[in-house]
Amino acid sequence: MRCEIVAVGTELLLGQIVDTNSAWIGEQLALAGIDCLRHAAVGDNGQRIHDALSEALARADAVIVTGGLGPTQDDITREVIAEVMGVGLERQDFLVERIEKRFAGRGRRMPENNLRQADVPVGAVPIEQMPGTAPGLVCPVGDKVIYAVPGVPSEMRDMVNGTVLPDLILRSGSTSVIRSRVLRTWGESESGLAELLAEEIVRLDATGGPTLAFLASGIEGLKVRITAKGDTEEDTLAMLAEEEVRVRAIIGSVIFGVDEQNMESVVLDLLVAQGLTMATAESMTGGMIGARLTEVPGASRAFVGSVVSYANSVKHDLLGVPEGPVVSEAAVRAMAAGVCEATGADVSVAVTGVAGPEAQEGVEPGVVWIATSVDGVTEAVQVRFPYGRTMTRQLTVISALNMLRRRLIDRG
Amino acid sequence: MRCEIVAVGTELLLGQIVDTNSAWIGEQLALAGIDCLRHAAVGDNGQRIHDALSEALARADAVIVTGGLGPTQDDITREVIAEVMGVGLERQDFLVERIEKRFAGRGRRMPENNLRQADVPVGAVPIEQMPGTAPGLVCPVGDKVIYAVPGVPSEMRDMVNGTVLPDLILRSGSTSVIRSRVLRTWGESESGLAELLAEEIVRLDATGGPTLAFLASGIEGLKVRITAKGDTEEDTLAMLAEEEVRVRAIIGSVIFGVDEQNMESVVLDLLVAQGLTMATAESMTGGMIGARLTEVPGASRAFVGSVVSYANSVKHDLLGVPEGPVVSEAAVRAMAAGVCEATGADVSVAVTGVAGPEAQEGVEPGVVWIATSVDGVTEAVQVRFPYGRTMTRQLTVISALNMLRRRLIDRG
Repeated sequence: MRCEIVAVGTELLLGQIVDTNSAWIGEQLALAGIDCLRHAAVGDNGQRIHDALSEALARADAVIVTGGLGPTQDDITREVIAEVMGVGLERQDFLVERIEKRFAGRGRRMPENNLRQADVPVGAVPIEQMPGTAPGLVCPVGDKVIYAVPGVPSEMRDMVNGTVLPDLILRSGSTSVIRSRVLRTWGESESGLAELLAEEIVRLDATGGPTLAFLASGIEGLKVRITAKGDTEEDTLAMLAEEEVRVRAIIGSVIFGVDEQNMESVVLDLLVAQGLTMATAESMTGGMIGARLTEVPGASRAFVGSVVSYANSVKHDLLGVPEGPVVSEAAVRAMAAGVCEATGADVSVAVTGVAGPEAQEGVEPGVVWIATSVDGVTEAVQVRFPYGRTMTRQLTVISALNMLRRRLIDRG
Repeated sequence: MRCEIVAVGTELLLGQIVDTNSAWIGEQLALAGIDCLRHAAVGDNGQRIHDALSEALARADAVIVTGGLGPTQDDITREVIAEVMGVGLERQDFLVERIEKRFAGRGRRMPENNLRQADVPVGAVPIEQMPGTAPGLVCPVGDKVIYAVPGVPSEMRDMVNGTVLPDLILRSGSTSVIRSRVLRTWGESESGLAELLAEEIVRLDATGGPTLAFLASGIEGLKVRITAKGDTEEDTLAMLAEEEVRVRAIIGSVIFGVDEQNMESVVLDLLVAQGLTMATAESMTGGMIGARLTEVPGASRAFVGSVVSYANSVKHDLLGVPEGPVVSEAAVRAMAAGVCEATGADVSVAVTGVAGPEAQEGVEPGVVWIATSVDGVTEAVQVRFPYGRTMTRQLTVISALNMLRRRLIDRG
């Protein structure tokens, strides 16, 4: 089964939008074991969309086209697919009704133009999922198929997950179920993880079990993805669970979360489970740690606040940091203790360091002190991040949260 | 002059990397007045790269190919281009020397593999700019041309700006100079800006002057791009400057910056110019305002710190907010005044509101109070952002900074 992706939209060619859809679909196809050989992007031009679709269809068994399903005159993907299929368009009453309902639900009048979205090439089947007003389409072309989905990422994802992937897998004749689970790690390099898991990977290769893949996710650590293929959903999930246990036995100490979990949500869950409140004392991160924690809905169950002491006077006045160097163990410990006292929080993280680009008090950029205070006991470490201001700040945030995470686990 | 872009790399098809290069190149081509009709991405496969290049070359006058110029066996763009040109490869001694120097400069030994990067299709010319170890190439194919540049974004940009765009413009026969300037706005909708500038756009159309384009930049407001085309650099910059004056006369009050400026850098510049220090008192933004300000190198010239009062107790204890509803005018004014007192800052911004998803104290998500304190005088406004938790927080940050910006301008 070979697939290609065609993205439609002049704004893509002009660089006004980056095409993240094709990358996302590419990843889903790879996970489902379907080859994807080419991505293309073309503008809102009938002839060029026609050419791109026809060429892709000549090479592949299936084509996923994103974009051009909206209500405006620019949106011509429906019409071009009908041409490629050699059929006409037919207005579908049940789609008219659905679209009208969407507008009514939002208390808005439906512009006449939106009726165009109910026009479907004869022989094509609208996709069941329809989170917006643009119906997606499954369009058979001989023994091949074009899937048309909107360019709006959330709508596209619903339709790809709900209809396109299951249909592709059905067409591929595969009766197996493929599922994956992502273990999120922090604190080990890709080569380090690969070395630790080398024996397990050899064992899996030999037994034909699940596969392991390493995915970088920038400053958010590395992901280890387990992918299993079984005959039923139940079998496949059991294989995943079994392999997760094996992987955790080897690299468990660096795994901080699974799938959609992130460092801040994991820390907040641990705090809530242990009935603790938390504060941050931040210097060179300027508030980033608190900002990340409060991105999680319900952060107020544990997070009470921060003192951002960018100027030394604020460190002294609000956190009781003693006179002396502020990028130091003494200062960071005082910050961690001081913010618990000032806010009444049970635990805290504190960071002070030199983000750069300039050195400060004779300390080089990238030098950072991190402290945690738990049950009135502070611990502190010094780290060095030689990657520039932005990276140093981001790595400091996740390192500080990870340090607190490990202390909470030890405590629990 | 018609151009196409081909991105090479299996990691693009698998969705491990999002192709931001094609969008960036597309934008540069559009700015230079060169049509770009198609983007394509293919994997590290000789036949498929060959097909993609040949097809693109059949349709267009020029093809820019990114990626596949590295030292590993996967990197085969050089070889495929030689095939498309119908020539062999030739090792260029001066490139060998340059690459060796790069490694020596970093104190590293050059792996033998890297010599492959000195292989050039006969008749192709290496690109002068070479920020990494991969040379770019200008490869004539009949009266058409293939430009090969690395996939590493910073290397690609250097070569596109330094050689590819000037060469394309030369080939297009155009002797004119195209330059643009971006005016960054906040507080007006796209249709609002379009309405305000409608007359000016009609005037420009009629006189053949510079063009105006509106670009969305998410929560960062709208950009108005002025693009001018003149006979010389001097003429073109003069046209830009003149048009900027006209546009400012119409929408000056919503323009906060030019080109690479952002809201936080503009606020910090105003503070430094007026010799003022600043603090923030943040509730539902959890530290984001301070985090944004301190992303700017040298923020310490004006920013002293923040009190993040997520819990009500912190609002009362550290900021002196009186008992009563905390999403209120009284609370936000007290926060703005309180943080100046606590930190000794001259001016402040304060925000308190309901980010959602749940209502709080009977106040709906999206309701936000913002206050500024300048010269001891607080001002407060209520705003409503009906777009969910993340957007509400982000819009609150930029709105608060913009409110301070306007007060600083009035003061100055």
